[in-house]
Amino acid sequence: MEAFKDELRRVGEQIGEFIQNDPFPETVRPPALGDAVRDYPGRGGKRIRPALVLWACELFGGDREQAIPAAAAIEIYHNWTLVHDDIIDRDDLRRGMPSTHVTVRDYAASKLNAAPEQAAFFGESLAILAGDVQQGWAVERLASVADRGVDPALALTLVRAMQTKLNRELISGEARDVEFELLDPSAVSIPDVMSMINGKTGAIMEFALHCGAAIAKGAYEPKSPDFVALSRYAVNLAAAFQLQDDMLGVFGDEKVLGKPICSDFQEAKPTMLFLEAIHHLDAAGRARLDSCLRLPRYTDADVAAIRAILTESGSAETVRNSIAALSACASAALRQLPDNQWRTMLDTLVEQMLVRSV
Amino acid sequence: MEAFKDELRRVGEQIGEFIQNDPFPETVRPPALGDAVRDYPGRGGKRIRPALVLWACELFGGDREQAIPAAAAIEIYHNWTLVHDDIIDRDDLRRGMPSTHVTVRDYAASKLNAAPEQAAFFGESLAILAGDVQQGWAVERLASVADRGVDPALALTLVRAMQTKLNRELISGEARDVEFELLDPSAVSIPDVMSMINGKTGAIMEFALHCGAAIAKGAYEPKSPDFVALSRYAVNLAAAFQLQDDMLGVFGDEKVLGKPICSDFQEAKPTMLFLEAIHHLDAAGRARLDSCLRLPRYTDADVAAIRAILTESGSAETVRNSIAALSACASAALRQLPDNQWRTMLDTLVEQMLVRSV
Repeated sequence: MEAFKDELRRVGEQIGEFIQNDPFPETVRPPALGDAVRDYPGRGGKRIRPALVLWACELFGGDREQAIPAAAAIEIYHNWTLVHDDIIDRDDLRRGMPSTHVTVRDYAASKLNAAPEQAAFFGESLAILAGDVQQGWAVERLASVADRGVDPALALTLVRAMQTKLNRELISGEARDVEFELLDPSAVSIPDVMSMINGKTGAIMEFALHCGAAIAKGAYEPKSPDFVALSRYAVNLAAAFQLQDDMLGVFGDEKVLGKPICSDFQEAKPTMLFLEAIHHLDAAGRARLDSCLRLPRYTDADVAAIRAILTESGSAETVRNSIAALSACASAALRQLPDNQWRTMLDTLVEQMLVRSV
Repeated sequence: MEAFKDELRRVGEQIGEFIQNDPFPETVRPPALGDAVRDYPGRGGKRIRPALVLWACELFGGDREQAIPAAAAIEIYHNWTLVHDDIIDRDDLRRGMPSTHVTVRDYAASKLNAAPEQAAFFGESLAILAGDVQQGWAVERLASVADRGVDPALALTLVRAMQTKLNRELISGEARDVEFELLDPSAVSIPDVMSMINGKTGAIMEFALHCGAAIAKGAYEPKSPDFVALSRYAVNLAAAFQLQDDMLGVFGDEKVLGKPICSDFQEAKPTMLFLEAIHHLDAAGRARLDSCLRLPRYTDADVAAIRAILTESGSAETVRNSIAALSACASAALRQLPDNQWRTMLDTLVEQMLVRSV
């Protein structure tokens, strides 16, 4: 446990320092765009995704130093999707600080004397472009493993995997999530939701692990048993994490959540929790649940009512069981891999992500 | 002349067919996003940028078939920047058809019954994501030259050049252009404008030529004389083209233009034409010119007044001389390169782009 936390802190420091010293954003103009490009990747956060790269590399006896640019690349890749997501989801905060489009908007208003509407539009425009530059940065940083002794042909293969499999799965997941908002939530199927989760959360974890393994092994072999085991670990971990997130969003403590309680109901999101409930409710129960969607605010009584419906319908228990099963599958996948301290790190990550101490 | 037009038609057919049959967008979900990803690259247009790749490859005796994926990659790269530009510039038309964000908006309104505001937001969100997928597609397509016998190390080098030099220069050019809109146009310097033009238009022409040359030569050597000559050609051609565009925007025929006459004045854009004028005008002339900015519409009398000021100040002549000088520099740069039919194509392109028959 202490070893896990120390190691995660070490990853955070290594990746933070590497990104801080990365010259890529320096020549971006105007300076406001360069600052926007540096912003999220420099903010820290838990650095789980780069940790997956480094641990998978060490798991197979690879050289951690070779994998550091790849780990930074995954972190930058994750961050460009966040910059664009925050525009799309109209989120004004990211890790407790203003989102990119808000920071640039405020800069335009205060330094360029832009009128409010003009400043907001400028903020969104530069945030779109900042994410675009960051995608380029991520590709270049992954390719640069070739400067640390990785075979250029393997570096090219990794870049191609990132820009085909990861790019399409991740953005398709995001697009489905956006589309869900326009649909009646009960019209969405559970497989659709699981596929969306896998795209938005699982694909990048899987690719992070594959990158680290490929650098250690000198080959990217997504169909080989070790890679398949890493995929199973990633997909199950990501799904467990997302379902746990949905549970906390209803049953958790608003003070700890960092977002309003029941916000998924406010946005009428088709979560597993919601879909399981409607499958088990009669017409009257269904009507009660539907009446809890899209309320302007959620009183204690509303929250209590939602919790009661989800509990009585058996939905909460079903989802809790799914989380346990998915976590067990993630851990089971690890048992086919070399037994060393890095496998222990990955195993500890499963429990830590679910208790949310990381 | 006929040979030039035939060859450009041939490029259009080859690239159009290649992109049409490219499986990359197939697995993108939901289908509305996949359609958006295919849309612009499939629309045709003049295919000047892919022509530059193929002609530079043939110029140095390279195998055109090897360069075709790179030519398609440049076209896709250009198109993702257009998708995002059209959101940023609020352009609802592209090549005479609805822009991506408009197409998706109309789909959401008609097929998903979204309310107008919701449909517009959905259109912009999916257009952001479509450009993001297209950037990935362009990288993968360039990397895939390795499947046609190009050394993987060279393919990696080309990908890195695209995602560092081209990505940063092109997007920085776009961001400067967006920033100019917030500034007093007279506060922008001529070097700033030329640097913006080079980023927005010159960088991708330069990279297209370098890609073709690198594939032919088996090496990417941006500091070697051949590459430097191609850079000089590209930078001068792009600048001449942009200045010509500015001239036509004021002195051209609205019916041919495809946009309202004097739209640069309406948007208070700091064009060379405008900046040259204010440098030569006294306070009274300057006030007259300023009074022509941001008018709700431009009457024949307004247009005549603007033309008179630009002519009397000597600005129109200065810009016309610059276009001639830049075109001559572009052609001169070619004289250091092998003298064959492909060099003739590039030379013919200079005149054709300026008379705008292409």
